[in-house]
Amino acid sequence: MSRILVNVAVRHFADGRFVSRPDIVAGEEPLEIRLGGRPFTVTMRTPGHDVELVHGLLLAEGIISAADDVLAARYCAGADEDGRNTYNVMDVELARPLAAAEAIRSAVRTASATSACGVCGKASIDALRLRVRHPLCPGPRLNPEVVAALPGRLRQGQRAFARTGGLHAAALADANGQLDEVREDVGRHNAVDKVIGAALMAGRIPATDRVLVTSSRASFELVQKAILAGIGMLVAVSAPSSLAVELAVDAGLTLVGFTRQTSFNVYSAAGRVGGD
Amino acid sequence: MSRILVNVAVRHFADGRFVSRPDIVAGEEPLEIRLGGRPFTVTMRTPGHDVELVHGLLLAEGIISAADDVLAARYCAGADEDGRNTYNVMDVELARPLAAAEAIRSAVRTASATSACGVCGKASIDALRLRVRHPLCPGPRLNPEVVAALPGRLRQGQRAFARTGGLHAAALADANGQLDEVREDVGRHNAVDKVIGAALMAGRIPATDRVLVTSSRASFELVQKAILAGIGMLVAVSAPSSLAVELAVDAGLTLVGFTRQTSFNVYSAAGRVGGD
Repeated sequence: MSRILVNVAVRHFADGRFVSRPDIVAGEEPLEIRLGGRPFTVTMRTPGHDVELVHGLLLAEGIISAADDVLAARYCAGADEDGRNTYNVMDVELARPLAAAEAIRSAVRTASATSACGVCGKASIDALRLRVRHPLCPGPRLNPEVVAALPGRLRQGQRAFARTGGLHAAALADANGQLDEVREDVGRHNAVDKVIGAALMAGRIPATDRVLVTSSRASFELVQKAILAGIGMLVAVSAPSSLAVELAVDAGLTLVGFTRQTSFNVYSAAGRVGGD
Repeated sequence: MSRILVNVAVRHFADGRFVSRPDIVAGEEPLEIRLGGRPFTVTMRTPGHDVELVHGLLLAEGIISAADDVLAARYCAGADEDGRNTYNVMDVELARPLAAAEAIRSAVRTASATSACGVCGKASIDALRLRVRHPLCPGPRLNPEVVAALPGRLRQGQRAFARTGGLHAAALADANGQLDEVREDVGRHNAVDKVIGAALMAGRIPATDRVLVTSSRASFELVQKAILAGIGMLVAVSAPSSLAVELAVDAGLTLVGFTRQTSFNVYSAAGRVGGD
């Protein structure tokens, strides 16, 4: 299977009915970057051109300023449980070792950095599983027409978007599609964090009677945020990634994408939107 | 001035001519989060609902799991150079201090974390200025029709987008609008890092004869990446943020947004697209 274009099966809703069909989603896998063997950061990316990605990222982080600041960049020889190289860990040998202050600053900066060489999508899902304290509740069951209407309601609730065209939004919705307060932010993760943070402060987490609606794509990270908040359904306006689908299937979360006025795709646990 | 909706002046191109007009962009400012007084992370966000944002982010990071894990979340009493509180530094008092392993893991995880309380957009720009090794070259001058055509060319160069609808893209273009290789990724930052990394490896950084084209919004971070690569113009399909505009004006980078087939907005250094 290609790691850039990943085949999935979806339940597609349009014109009032569901059909099962194959679909293709964009590949998303973790890339762990190490400097001289020490973990530096993990970025979720579409596999391919990883050496270029690492050079660009290190330039932007101020770690390097020219190509010859990198002596070598090579995949770690680790392997997944089937004995194959994951090509998801890259070690960079720098021409000049980092100054002490930089080394401290850069030490293991992400929560999901691993110590093994076999980092892959499955490892990311396994790591998350250890952090989830309770099984995910199925959550509410929604009529497909209610699901299709959610992005329109979210847009109506956005005060600032209409004036800037530049803000993501998120909200929790109940089984009838009624939205709680809409939150906006230039960052899609921030908008979701604001919504979930508000629910946490109000004592409503795990939010087992709510679905999470986002104006953006559905990445691994957004599905993870929903699961950690005990929310059983994520409705995204745009496309999901491969790892978002994989995680949703694993956790039993209902993942809906490409949600338009009269149509959407269900990538996992389709029964909860009348898709069985 | 509102910190959520920020007024800017733009040169708007449409129907073959430029007009100057006021515009509104989404506010973007850094929020530094501290745990018990120690820097934890910095996120670029739209101001507002910061306490909720912090709760949501700490839940997703596994630092807290319930509202009462947070004893207090309050803005640091620091001030900017004019003596005003920036409301951009929030200190969180946890009910249980982090375990040693977590504290190490979470120590100063971002390159832009500061030690002062006055973190604000200007401080972020000042910090970047220290890292830029050479003044930004003006770069090529483009005909407005060439600029307007860039997103279409970028889309044509995307192999995977048409099949998934879920990938961002970036590329460098010359003064005639000819694109170098297009890179795609689920993450817009990754797509830009791949493009700039490829140029760095080929010895073409600073890329003073190129403009950077992105299928996404223009955030502070993307403008920063362009500046660090010596690229004098960023053409984005979607909206810029307030801090992206501020940084572009400060650095003399030409920032173009809302680039559609026959129209776009220029937010800074408009002369380079025939906008003076």
